[in-house]
Amino acid sequence: ITSKLPNVGTTIFTTMSQLAAETGALNLSQGFPDFDGPLALREALARHVMAGHNQYAPMTGLPALREQVAVKVRSLYGRNACADREITISPGATQAIFCAIQAVVRAGDEVIVFDPCYDSYEPAVQLAGGVCIHQPLTLPDFRIDWQRLADALTPRTRMIVLNTPHNPSGALIESSELDRLAELIRGRDIYLLSDEVYEHLVFDGRAHASVLRHDELYQRAFVVSSFGKTYHVTGWKTGYVVAPPALTDELRKVHQYVSFTAVTPLQWALADFMAGHPEHIVELPAFYQAKRDLFCDLLAGSRLRFERAAGTYFQLIDYSAIRPDLDDVAMAQWLTREHGVASIPISVFYQRPPQGLRLVRFCFAKREETLRQAAERLCAI
Amino acid sequence: ITSKLPNVGTTIFTTMSQLAAETGALNLSQGFPDFDGPLALREALARHVMAGHNQYAPMTGLPALREQVAVKVRSLYGRNACADREITISPGATQAIFCAIQAVVRAGDEVIVFDPCYDSYEPAVQLAGGVCIHQPLTLPDFRIDWQRLADALTPRTRMIVLNTPHNPSGALIESSELDRLAELIRGRDIYLLSDEVYEHLVFDGRAHASVLRHDELYQRAFVVSSFGKTYHVTGWKTGYVVAPPALTDELRKVHQYVSFTAVTPLQWALADFMAGHPEHIVELPAFYQAKRDLFCDLLAGSRLRFERAAGTYFQLIDYSAIRPDLDDVAMAQWLTREHGVASIPISVFYQRPPQGLRLVRFCFAKREETLRQAAERLCAI
Ligand SMILES: CSCCC(=O)C(=O)O
Ligand SMILES: CSCCC(=O)C(=O)O
Repeated sequence: ITSKLPNVGTTIFTTMSQLAAETGALNLSQGFPDFDGPLALREALARHVMAGHNQYAPMTGLPALREQVAVKVRSLYGRNACADREITISPGATQAIFCAIQAVVRAGDEVIVFDPCYDSYEPAVQLAGGVCIHQPLTLPDFRIDWQRLADALTPRTRMIVLNTPHNPSGALIESSELDRLAELIRGRDIYLLSDEVYEHLVFDGRAHASVLRHDELYQRAFVVSSFGKTYHVTGWKTGYVVAPPALTDELRKVHQYVSFTAVTPLQWALADFMAGHPEHIVELPAFYQAKRDLFCDLLAGSRLRFERAAGTYFQLIDYSAIRPDLDDVAMAQWLTREHGVASIPISVFYQRPPQGLRLVRFCFAKREETLRQAAERLCAI
Repeated sequence: ITSKLPNVGTTIFTTMSQLAAETGALNLSQGFPDFDGPLALREALARHVMAGHNQYAPMTGLPALREQVAVKVRSLYGRNACADREITISPGATQAIFCAIQAVVRAGDEVIVFDPCYDSYEPAVQLAGGVCIHQPLTLPDFRIDWQRLADALTPRTRMIVLNTPHNPSGALIESSELDRLAELIRGRDIYLLSDEVYEHLVFDGRAHASVLRHDELYQRAFVVSSFGKTYHVTGWKTGYVVAPPALTDELRKVHQYVSFTAVTPLQWALADFMAGHPEHIVELPAFYQAKRDLFCDLLAGSRLRFERAAGTYFQLIDYSAIRPDLDDVAMAQWLTREHGVASIPISVFYQRPPQGLRLVRFCFAKREETLRQAAERLCAI
């Protein structure tokens, strides 16, 4: 069989989590908490499963959960998104991203992605017959190079993929940048996919510049988020898409045949928890900022260098003072095998990794004890 | 926006379930039970959620659940499928089908489907850039027309989609037919997708001719099944694919970027339940056969005509003695609105519905009380 995705191997997340498991290393690679979701959320799931909410949910998602998303989107971003026409519950943000891409990208279309970028965008574009145009973010700040972006637009440009807060760098797009983007693509037939799964993980009093706040951009956007990231239950694989009605219609045509619908009892539990615990998302930035600061403060005594992440639950670390001879893939393996801490190399998120990149990504969505142990091991190098 | 799926509307399942809800009709349309999954299964889910199994499962599925599938496949079909290399857990059978199609169908490829066929195959093929070649099954028995199939094969034929037990007709493929198929496609570069989600719902002592039993066909097959159908929890959206290693590799490349992985606590619960309750699948045929027979016996006093379904939990009904003037879409609406019983018209599963088709599909995965009420209403017409 000739592969349709010949360049695709196993994702780096699986590779590094497996290596961590094999070597018994602390797993700060793949992005998931090593603590559990809120008790009330888990109890709600147990309740709904026992109460018999185990058959198909409506294709677009449970009305009560779509309503909770509408309430949140209105209160946080001032957008009146219609629960029926603009909000779709998806079996995970990865799938939401896949369906949004499939909904609009046609054979021969170009999709602009900013490197380093999450590794699911490109295979989704490829399966739609499109091609990714990779734009490197500037270093060391991971910002969009506007001139380069302007030069990259062609009549075949069909979609631009934004990701803020940005995985793996933790950088945030500014709201003034959204204005600039709007100006740049005004009058062109270009859609946006805005991957905002870390929307609540923004630190030091900064604001998340959601595309949902931006009237002009929203008209052509699919905005994706993740209940798994927000509620510490990545294994629940439930997310959502907010998009204007015409785009939602196209998204749902794909969604209904990719998956039909998301898991029913999880949707009930999330709807209950969102209604009963609005404080969860309010407290989330401080909760993760404390973890970031604990980890970074402890690393101050090491030879690792870093700028604290502005968002996400990932911290990039420059290791060039320790092993400048190793590229980041080798470094991530060496750290896992020799020092018992797994991380993610970031060159794998580039089409053409910049020469001399010496950065690995640590996930700080971990218990204090895990972060202390990891920092101790890293300081000992 | 120009739609990539211009011919796709809302699935008939959503349409009819909504109409049933609006009109207060008994919903015998969309295929799901109106009773709950086994208590022990639901308790297992509650337990695992509380025990903290809420983060990402491995991309290929929880090893314990893959192992249970391997055990089942070995004991029922005599196939030694390797849990690591040949079994993948998927967020629902619909998604498994989508990924299998995406894994092998390329732009311009032809995929043979047998009408009436499940409505997700064609959009999946279209999104892969392929084209469905529709072969009508013979009437009234819903069998493959072998001469027609032979004539339809071309150098572009890339895949054939089988579905046994067959939705909506309940017909079964015979094992001799699998031999015939093997002969027909021998030496050709054609893959099989075998949708066997109703594998355990086979009645009157018949055997399910799984492609898993057939050494030659299995070498080129993706065999899909559904925990949701088997364990009465359609809202759990969890299924699996068995395929030889080379095909599994390609399937997983797609799966890892369509969804990454299935829901973790559901997989734990299913693994526990399968291990602890092997009797469930043994008892399943008699359980559903009793429902079929109850429904059909009660309808004996009506003017509806039928042959009892050989498999699935669907019963086709010929209504031509009652309203020969109505096509099946109009009939399904009339029955819902005027007589309070929702069903599924089957012409929507055809590219070219046969002239004068007067069949609707009822789902008998319902409590005795529901079936009695429905039959009473149908007998009163
Ligand atoms: C889908 S596994 C990857 C989790 C994640 O988002 C990350 O580690 O970046
Ligand atoms: C995915 S909703 C359809 C359920 C089903 O399999 C059917 O009713 O045929």
